[in-house]
Formats: sequence, C-alpha cells, structure tokens
Amino acid sequence: MKGNVIVGQSGGPTAAINSSLAGVYRTAKDRGANKVYGMLFGIQGLLQERYIDLSEYITNDLDTELLKRTPAAFLGSCRYKLPEIHENKDVYEKIFSILEKLDIEAFIYIGGNDSMDTIKKLSDYAIVTGYRTRFIGCPKTIDNDLALTDHTPGYGSAAKYIGTSVKEIIRDSFCLEYGKGLVSIVEIMGRNAGWLTGAAALAKGEDCLGPDLIYLPELPFDIEAFSEKVKDLLAKKPSVVVAVSEGIRLADGRYVCELGQSVDFVDAFGHKQLSGTANYLASYIAGEFGCKTRAIELSTLQRSASHCASRVDILEAYQVGGAAVKAADEGDSGKMVVLQRLSDDPYQCGTEVKDVHKIANDEKVVPREWVTEDGSYVTDDFVSYVRPLIQGDVSPVMVDGIPRHLYRKN
Amino acid sequence: MKGNVIVGQSGGPTAAINSSLAGVYRTAKDRGANKVYGMLFGIQGLLQERYIDLSEYITNDLDTELLKRTPAAFLGSCRYKLPEIHENKDVYEKIFSILEKLDIEAFIYIGGNDSMDTIKKLSDYAIVTGYRTRFIGCPKTIDNDLALTDHTPGYGSAAKYIGTSVKEIIRDSFCLEYGKGLVSIVEIMGRNAGWLTGAAALAKGEDCLGPDLIYLPELPFDIEAFSEKVKDLLAKKPSVVVAVSEGIRLADGRYVCELGQSVDFVDAFGHKQLSGTANYLASYIAGEFGCKTRAIELSTLQRSASHCASRVDILEAYQVGGAAVKAADEGDSGKMVVLQRLSDDPYQCGTEVKDVHKIANDEKVVPREWVTEDGSYVTDDFVSYVRPLIQGDVSPVMVDGIPRHLYRKN
Repeated sequence: MKGNVIVGQSGGPTAAINSSLAGVYRTAKDRGANKVYGMLFGIQGLLQERYIDLSEYITNDLDTELLKRTPAAFLGSCRYKLPEIHENKDVYEKIFSILEKLDIEAFIYIGGNDSMDTIKKLSDYAIVTGYRTRFIGCPKTIDNDLALTDHTPGYGSAAKYIGTSVKEIIRDSFCLEYGKGLVSIVEIMGRNAGWLTGAAALAKGEDCLGPDLIYLPELPFDIEAFSEKVKDLLAKKPSVVVAVSEGIRLADGRYVCELGQSVDFVDAFGHKQLSGTANYLASYIAGEFGCKTRAIELSTLQRSASHCASRVDILEAYQVGGAAVKAADEGDSGKMVVLQRLSDDPYQCGTEVKDVHKIANDEKVVPREWVTEDGSYVTDDFVSYVRPLIQGDVSPVMVDGIPRHLYRKN
Repeated sequence: MKGNVIVGQSGGPTAAINSSLAGVYRTAKDRGANKVYGMLFGIQGLLQERYIDLSEYITNDLDTELLKRTPAAFLGSCRYKLPEIHENKDVYEKIFSILEKLDIEAFIYIGGNDSMDTIKKLSDYAIVTGYRTRFIGCPKTIDNDLALTDHTPGYGSAAKYIGTSVKEIIRDSFCLEYGKGLVSIVEIMGRNAGWLTGAAALAKGEDCLGPDLIYLPELPFDIEAFSEKVKDLLAKKPSVVVAVSEGIRLADGRYVCELGQSVDFVDAFGHKQLSGTANYLASYIAGEFGCKTRAIELSTLQRSASHCASRVDILEAYQVGGAAVKAADEGDSGKMVVLQRLSDDPYQCGTEVKDVHKIANDEKVVPREWVTEDGSYVTDDFVSYVRPLIQGDVSPVMVDGIPRHLYRKN
C-alpha cells in the first residue's frame, strides 16, 4: 500500500469487534501502509475530525493480543446512518475532504447492517465523483443477521457465553426443591432474529439435558400453548428452564414484554416501566401454577463477555479484518468480506468479498426448518451450524485476578 | 477411620461448594473410610432417607476434577432449619436412627449460617444422648457473611466473576455516545452484607477506572445524595457505572426496590420480590436528568459461573472439605472449619476448627471503616482483603466448546 488506512467501528459492540480491528491494523502495517488511523465513534466522530493514529496505542505484539481480548469497541462506536447522497451532498464532501487530507487509500468499516449501508453510499459517491479511496466493510454483530455471510464475527463468542451460562443456570436450578416446582425463564438478546436464543441449545450434552423450551422471535408466540407445555413439564420434573428471545411477539404483533404493563411498576414520574419478557412470563407462570419462578436476563454481558470468547470467533474476526485490507489493497471497493463455510466436519471456513449492495439493510433470520414444528425448540441442524463457531478458548491475559484489556483513555 | 462418612450440602449454591464435596470425599477415602454417602437435598432429604454412595459417581481422578468445576450443589441442597431439640425430639431420633443404620462416624455439612445451626443442634443432641457420630461444618456462601472465618469458600469465585463482569460492562458502556450521557446501574446479590457488591471495585486497575459509585446495604441509601453524585459525574464524563446491592434501603428502612411499585409485585405465595433495585434507580435517574440509563442484574450467574472461578477459592474449598473430615477423624465434633489468613502479601491462609456455637446464626457485615466516609465506595483496605481471593483460574474441562460438569441424574 502506498497511502494510509482508516478504520472505524459501528453499531452495537461485541467481544470480537476489536479482534477485527487488530487484524486491520496488522495487515495494513504488513502491507506497507504508512499510517493506520482509527476514527473515534465511527463515521459520526470522523465528521467531527476525531481520529487517532493507532500506532500510538498498538505498540507491540502484546498490545495486539490484548486488543483481541478487549470487549466492546476500542475506538468507540456510533449508530449513525448517512443521508441519501441526493439529499445532502455536504456530508459527503466533508467526509471526503477529511479522507483526502489524511491521504486515505482504504477505508474499513467494521459493523452490521447500517454500517454496510455506509460503505455502500461512500463507495458509490467515490465512484461517481472520482475519489480514489476504496471502501470495504467488515462484518460484525452478535445477532448474526447479516446476509450472504455464513455467519458473523461476534456471534460465536456470544453463542458460547449463552450456552455456557444457560448450562450453569440449569445446574443451579436443580439445587433446591420446591413443592410445586421451579420455572426459570432466561431472556436472550435478538429482537427479530433468533440466532442468539437458539444458542441456548448448546447447553445440552451428555452431562446436561439442556433447556426445556426455546422460543425464537421468528415465530408468533402462543402464550397458552407455552403454558400448557410448562404444565406438562412440571408434572414430570422439578425444574423447568426456558430460553426466550427478548423480541417474541404474539400473533397479533404485540411484544410479550408489553403485556405486563398493568401488573408492573410505574416509576417515580408516572412512566409505565416495561418489564422484560422474562419477568412477564415468570409472573404469568407463577400466577397460573403457583410454582416458584425466576427471570434471568443475560443482558449486556452476552455481547461483552470477552472472558468467555470463542477462539474460532476471535481468529475469524481477525482474519476478516485482514481480508478487508487485502481486498482494498488489491483494488476492491463497495464490498464486504464474508465468511464462507467450506466444510462442517472438520469445520473449515474461508473469506471472500461480496458486493455490499447485495447485503446492506437485509436481515437474515433463522430458517423455519431449523425450528421444530411446534416452534418450541431448535433442530439438530441449527446446533450443527453453530457448534463449530464456539470451539476453542482465548485465555484472557490475567493481571491480579482480572482480565487485562487494551485501554484508550476516554 | 473405621466407620462411614456422610456429607450434605445446604443453602444457596455456589461455584465452589462441589469442590468442598470433592475434598470431603477424597480425604475420607484417603483416611480409610469405608463408605462415603451423600445426602440428597441436605438434611431434609436425609430425613426421607434419600442418599447415594458417592463412589458410584466419583470413580476416578477425572471425576474429582470435574466435580471441582461443577457449579451449584451436586447433591442438591435445602433450606431447612431443624426444630429446637426440646420442641421435637422425633426429628432427631429419626436422623440418628438413619445415621446408626448407615454406621456413620462423621457427618459433614457444607453450608452457611443455617447449616451451622444444624451442626450445632445435631452435635449437642449426640453429646446429650451418647451417640458417637461427630458433626463438622464446612463453610460455604457467596455472601461471605459467616463469622469467625477470614472469608468463606464460594465468595472468591463470585467476587472474581463480579469484578470481571463489571469491567466488561464498563468497557461496553463507553462505546456509544449519548447526548446527555449514559448511566448503567449494576445490581449485585447480598441482602444484608455488601461483600459481593464491594467486589465491583476489583474492576479498577491500570486499564480501567472501575465503577464510579458503589453502594452497600450496610449503610442507609440516600437517593438525593446519590442523584447529586450522578449529576456531578455526568458533567465530567459520558458514561457513569454504579454498582448497587439488591438490599440497599432508605434511612426509614424501606428497600429501594419497593419504592416504584404501585402494585405490590409479589409472587404466588405473597412474598415480596426483591429484585428491581437497579430498574428503579435507572428509571429515577432517567427521569431526573433525561439521560440514557440501563439496569443490569448479575442475577443467578454470580453464584453459578464456574467458568470464571477463582483458583484460590476452588483450592481452599477443597482444603476446607478435607480439613472437616480430618477434624472429625481426630475426634472433633460441633466445630466448623474456618479459614485463617496468615499473611496478605504473599497471601497465605490455613484452616482451623472453631466451636460452631460461636458461629451459628451470626452475620458478618462489611466493617464501617472499609466503606468511604460518604458511603459511596469501598476503601483500599476492602480491595486488599478481597484481591488475594480471586487469584488464579481453574480451566474448565471443555467438551465441544462448553464446560463439562459432573452429572448426577435427577
């Protein structure tokens, strides 16, 4: 490479997004890039000319390893959608004037659907106006809902955390006996796509029965059928564990988490506080059967638990970052790196680049045939798909008992 | 030993309680015990003659290692308090007839305050009536609230999980910028003792500023002073992270989690649900400052996350189990094994036995001088106390990407 590279992170953070950043940095340096800039808080920060020279932060190989093990977005992230080109050219001219000033040859953006929309628009603008910067997208999202790629970096680590945590919750749930049984409802992220919730099935193995029921947001949720299933399970076993997506909805389109308004608390200012999906279902089941219930939200940790990251995921995230730089260096623009699975057993996966116009703003959901007919579990095919993505561990660098991260002063 | 040993687990599960069970089993076998029985679901299960021969489950050294890495109570647990001896002798006669039948020389009970009460009553009864079984308690609780022992097995692993998770949440919380800032409230277990909540301070290090505020249940919570502090912090930084105990209360004794409930949120048995402290404070702060807030409950995982256990904790739990058997074998009864810290740096810790009469039903809280004067953080002394307890890791035995546990079919 002759010029410089700039890289940004966008959208919700993950445990693997910084590994892609490390891959971008190392590959750009290896291919002769002079400077590798990091935009702070994505394209939104770049518009305010907020960026750093990454070589000031990544000074040696240990820093690279720490970066790969640091959760969330090292550079900061944003949720910002560029206007359409015809609506506001000024924004584009501003961005390109900054890129020109910094002598940017390759612009790499690590993110999800909205970020690929940014890559699409910027590369379109460059082509139309003759700017020479090349734009490559690098996929990232725990939700695994990006089109065309077999899976998305960030998903494997989140899936591993979910499988591990659900298994530990199941162990916990059999400790104490309650007269009418115990029902634990675990709420998992994923508003429209059930990839994360389905990963609860990974808890199942020779030493664990796994969760009893799994409900994805792709199918309408029937609260009476659910209640019936719980009743049957309680007749057979003392503890029932259910994994639900935060985004499950009734057939009429209402979110389950909206249903609890009447029983849930109103805050000090009179605002109705929506209880979570798990909270609502736990109180519903307690009311129906008089059993003990508990609601557990895996919450923010499912996207930031680097201490439980998947080695496959962290390595693939790194490779994808490197492949993005390589593609730009070889002349590609308006493309996203995708992961292409070559084989399931043994698992083999390579990278390719695909036209970002075919990806942006498209949402990949779990196929209907990977959910059981009655919609209360995922199939073996789902598990075979996700299992290779959670293999291997990334030992955290422990300092005084706690994982060390690479730190950028805010 | 000439006779047999029986061991039980009681109270809330932890990540280390099975390591104590492994220590009891191995030491009993090493000292020549014929049979080592495990009572299922504690003394309550024993009263129903539910027990197993542990040698059927722990068949080799790998099983021992798996057991040390298995969260929750392998044998099942109970929350059962024996009646006073003068109130109901029948219960005692029933228990001792079972112990006689099984030729039990040593009865080891792994648990917290209530469990030590069980040891006290049974050993008293044995002395009065001339039964020869010896009774030794083995401390266990994530809450770290047992008297006389420097700390309690189970606490170190929970503290390590809390420090690690809070650090990951802090990383996550700086990713996205919000106009009026972001306030994250992390709710941590511990109704009356703040040992677990204080462990959030472990997140602080060279690479992390740590949480901004920490509120323990030992001191009254002043919501206006809290709000003022958050306001000042928001003026200085974009993201504020607060750790609160689930049990914080106002000066008038009301739990914070009760404040927002216009309709009492009670379970099917009429018990008030004690979760929602973080939820309430998040909505309070959002109302005050119009900033973005989020509430995160660490929930069940803080007591069951074996995948993030502390090596010191798991080893000490094992040693304490072994020391309990040794004490019984050497003639002690009515005692609990305690951990005695010999040195902070380098950390050294040994076991002793102490009279269970001095321990049972006593609750150890965080000393006032280990909380800052304004009650919004823990002191360096607190951190120096807990830091040695989270050192080292226990690599999980990973099978197909998920930690393997030792499994007892329910």
